[in-house]
Amino acid sequence: MEKQTIKDILSNYKTILHHDITIEGWVRAFRSNRFIALNDGSTLNNLQIVVDFEKFDDEIIKNIHTASSLKVTGEVVESQGAGQSVEIIAKKIELLGENLSEELQSTILQPKRHTLEKLREQAHLRFRTNLFGAVFRVRSAVSFAIHQFFNQNQFFYINTPIITGADAEGAGEMFGVSNFDLNKVPKNEDGEVDYTQDFFGKKTNLTVSGQLEAETAAMGLGRVYTFGPTFRAENSNTTRHLAEFWMVEPEVAFNNLEDNIDLAESFLKYVIQYVLDHCKDDLELLDKRFAEEQKQKPEKDRAKEGLIEKLENVVKKRFKRVSYTEAIEILLNSKDNKKGKFQFPVEKWGADLQSEHERYLVEKHFECPVVLFDYPKEIKAFYMRLNEDQKTVAAMDVLFPGIGEIIGGSQREERLEVLKQKMADMNVDEHELWWYLDTRKFGSVPHAGFGLGLERLVLFVTGMTNIRDVIPFPRTPKNAEF
Amino acid sequence: MEKQTIKDILSNYKTILHHDITIEGWVRAFRSNRFIALNDGSTLNNLQIVVDFEKFDDEIIKNIHTASSLKVTGEVVESQGAGQSVEIIAKKIELLGENLSEELQSTILQPKRHTLEKLREQAHLRFRTNLFGAVFRVRSAVSFAIHQFFNQNQFFYINTPIITGADAEGAGEMFGVSNFDLNKVPKNEDGEVDYTQDFFGKKTNLTVSGQLEAETAAMGLGRVYTFGPTFRAENSNTTRHLAEFWMVEPEVAFNNLEDNIDLAESFLKYVIQYVLDHCKDDLELLDKRFAEEQKQKPEKDRAKEGLIEKLENVVKKRFKRVSYTEAIEILLNSKDNKKGKFQFPVEKWGADLQSEHERYLVEKHFECPVVLFDYPKEIKAFYMRLNEDQKTVAAMDVLFPGIGEIIGGSQREERLEVLKQKMADMNVDEHELWWYLDTRKFGSVPHAGFGLGLERLVLFVTGMTNIRDVIPFPRTPKNAEF
Repeated sequence: MEKQTIKDILSNYKTILHHDITIEGWVRAFRSNRFIALNDGSTLNNLQIVVDFEKFDDEIIKNIHTASSLKVTGEVVESQGAGQSVEIIAKKIELLGENLSEELQSTILQPKRHTLEKLREQAHLRFRTNLFGAVFRVRSAVSFAIHQFFNQNQFFYINTPIITGADAEGAGEMFGVSNFDLNKVPKNEDGEVDYTQDFFGKKTNLTVSGQLEAETAAMGLGRVYTFGPTFRAENSNTTRHLAEFWMVEPEVAFNNLEDNIDLAESFLKYVIQYVLDHCKDDLELLDKRFAEEQKQKPEKDRAKEGLIEKLENVVKKRFKRVSYTEAIEILLNSKDNKKGKFQFPVEKWGADLQSEHERYLVEKHFECPVVLFDYPKEIKAFYMRLNEDQKTVAAMDVLFPGIGEIIGGSQREERLEVLKQKMADMNVDEHELWWYLDTRKFGSVPHAGFGLGLERLVLFVTGMTNIRDVIPFPRTPKNAEF
Repeated sequence: MEKQTIKDILSNYKTILHHDITIEGWVRAFRSNRFIALNDGSTLNNLQIVVDFEKFDDEIIKNIHTASSLKVTGEVVESQGAGQSVEIIAKKIELLGENLSEELQSTILQPKRHTLEKLREQAHLRFRTNLFGAVFRVRSAVSFAIHQFFNQNQFFYINTPIITGADAEGAGEMFGVSNFDLNKVPKNEDGEVDYTQDFFGKKTNLTVSGQLEAETAAMGLGRVYTFGPTFRAENSNTTRHLAEFWMVEPEVAFNNLEDNIDLAESFLKYVIQYVLDHCKDDLELLDKRFAEEQKQKPEKDRAKEGLIEKLENVVKKRFKRVSYTEAIEILLNSKDNKKGKFQFPVEKWGADLQSEHERYLVEKHFECPVVLFDYPKEIKAFYMRLNEDQKTVAAMDVLFPGIGEIIGGSQREERLEVLKQKMADMNVDEHELWWYLDTRKFGSVPHAGFGLGLERLVLFVTGMTNIRDVIPFPRTPKNAEF
């Protein structure tokens, strides 16, 4: 693209000083009928336009409102005021689009904490606010860093199916996909829905995970990852659940559990360092917001670290690796457990860990990111590799401060007979997963992978508290506007 | 990742000559009980393992078949034979997984032209073939190049919704998404489906395009792009249609139609050059296959250029920009039209162009990629900007040799009143698109964008002929296995 953005101008202004340039953007503020703060979305920062109102048509000046759009030509000069390096002395101003809404000016452009919810109903306008501009630029940087990390490490990006005829993984309730007119669903002789007449000739759903398909790809391409939307039809109206979210799932042939943990740690550190390196301005805004949020909380609930500090620490600190068995010991012996501070007391080995337990380990006990591994087989999925103790599987969860589980993964069961036995034990239909079993018949190899929910990571990196605020158009129960 | 891939070894072998290394992979061939061709998916190329069978257990040697998997430790030495720089003298061989299928050895690993169809039913095994390994590595490179191009040009990646309550664009038939048990769909008092009881409280579908939502993002972030799955519930069983495919949709504030064409041209050239630079081995295999395919055809149907030659020419040649009106003149006056060679004769201005017309322009008349622009408003979508002639809209299609339309885009109608009029004329519901109209009320700006079907581009770059062969798990009528 030949055109210069405001980001270009602010970072390379020395080469264009005293030149005339043309720039387009939206008005963020217009002070004293003289100073326009112009923003084009390329950066959080505005470009100051200095207007000598006597030189311009009244008609133009009176329509310069917050959120209206302008095309400005003028000379680049060093700024007299504080806070900006450079400004434009306007010679020509063209009004591209007026802003007809006073409400937009007040609510949308200066969102208060209590207006975030209201803004979710105006998701199409969130992009115009400083806060959401920052959030979505960071989200974009996180996504790019993910692709770049895997690319640099010789992974191949593969697209697993969104519409799937397989529903065996059982990771959660699934949405149905159909081409039927629901007013007249065709039935067969038994009075059951006749899916043979549907588009795909069978019952189909929206995917909950691309892992099983990704495993088949890793068996040929070696290192692969998926990065696409996944779905859960769970009726959960919480700050942590979305019905539609984006998931990253690497899968690596020849990796064991330790390799998998190494990969997860270097992956997370790379992505967070990338954001620290590339989103300084946006992170500073989010850091300030985070600090203000903390001040509103009772002291005991406040985060120990600032947002940027927290990110820097995650990159610096070695993740603590702890077996599930050790973790249970720590929890059983913890003061919090003995004093009954947990909502769900830890009673014995075999229990599933709750969010409060994970956060205790990360935030109080170890004070760094924690990787738990070797979980009881009963509480984990059928495809995880059975350990020699016959009691645990080679599973791993990465736990982060303030957020709990951010990655879940495992070494996969590559032994055909063991896998079949586990499927039988856990009531997973062998016939439906014939293709998955095939991968264990023809040159099966040890392999491992994990899943990362993109929005969880963006929540962590931006310090936002509601997952609906880190995805452009959130899908939740009773909400599919846009 | 610390582990070395076969790609690493083949490209950096000088630094590890006479060292012992350990490598894992699948057997592609085992000749004379002595030479194993080992592949790990990182590259098309195999690493040769030299085995002195007297030094190894019979049990191991007799289970080394095509497609079985091995872990080999041995010394890196310069190769005596032709065709490879380096080989490994095996000291230790561990059989990771046997291959129990003779069929897999013969059919899957040496796919003939007539077996491509059969392989689609074995999509999980396609990754293990040379041909599909190449196709999917190229697909991955294309995807990465797309992200990198936009990242370098200051675009932000945004995720538009997959499940959508909007169905106003009318780009094609949509799949329904529902949480209902189709055996007992709830009805309201009028006997109609009661969607208020469905998960989202309204009728929802799978997206056909993220463009309208992307436009709202561009109004705040400036330059954005989507890259995600889109869906068409069209019952078309052709080599060009998929029910689920991946689409790239950039949208740029302040761009007009010419900027949009410039963007499309530089984008396509960047991506194709990236593949030429990064996928040499895979392209050579595909180039050979393409040439063999051409030989099977009657001479008049053969492509004029080889695959790699074609890609290089697209990067080199300036795309020819021609208005729809000029194109119609050319077609009307063409020998092919006069002699009745077109299945659909071109009769007058206003007609929609068929694939045969597009290919005539690209392959016979101009012999280079062609961009057509300014189409009659009646044959294009409601959101395209009305030109001053009141007859045409600022639409553009990029046409490629052998494939026809690869990109379709337009400058968008940013004038509220003109947009409303066009929606009324074309029966698009204003109320449903209230949020889209909002973007024209609050600081509307000229903007433009386009859509690229990823699989179309991968088809072009790989020279494959059936679109089902360039997506890992194709979704087509009556087909949603995996």
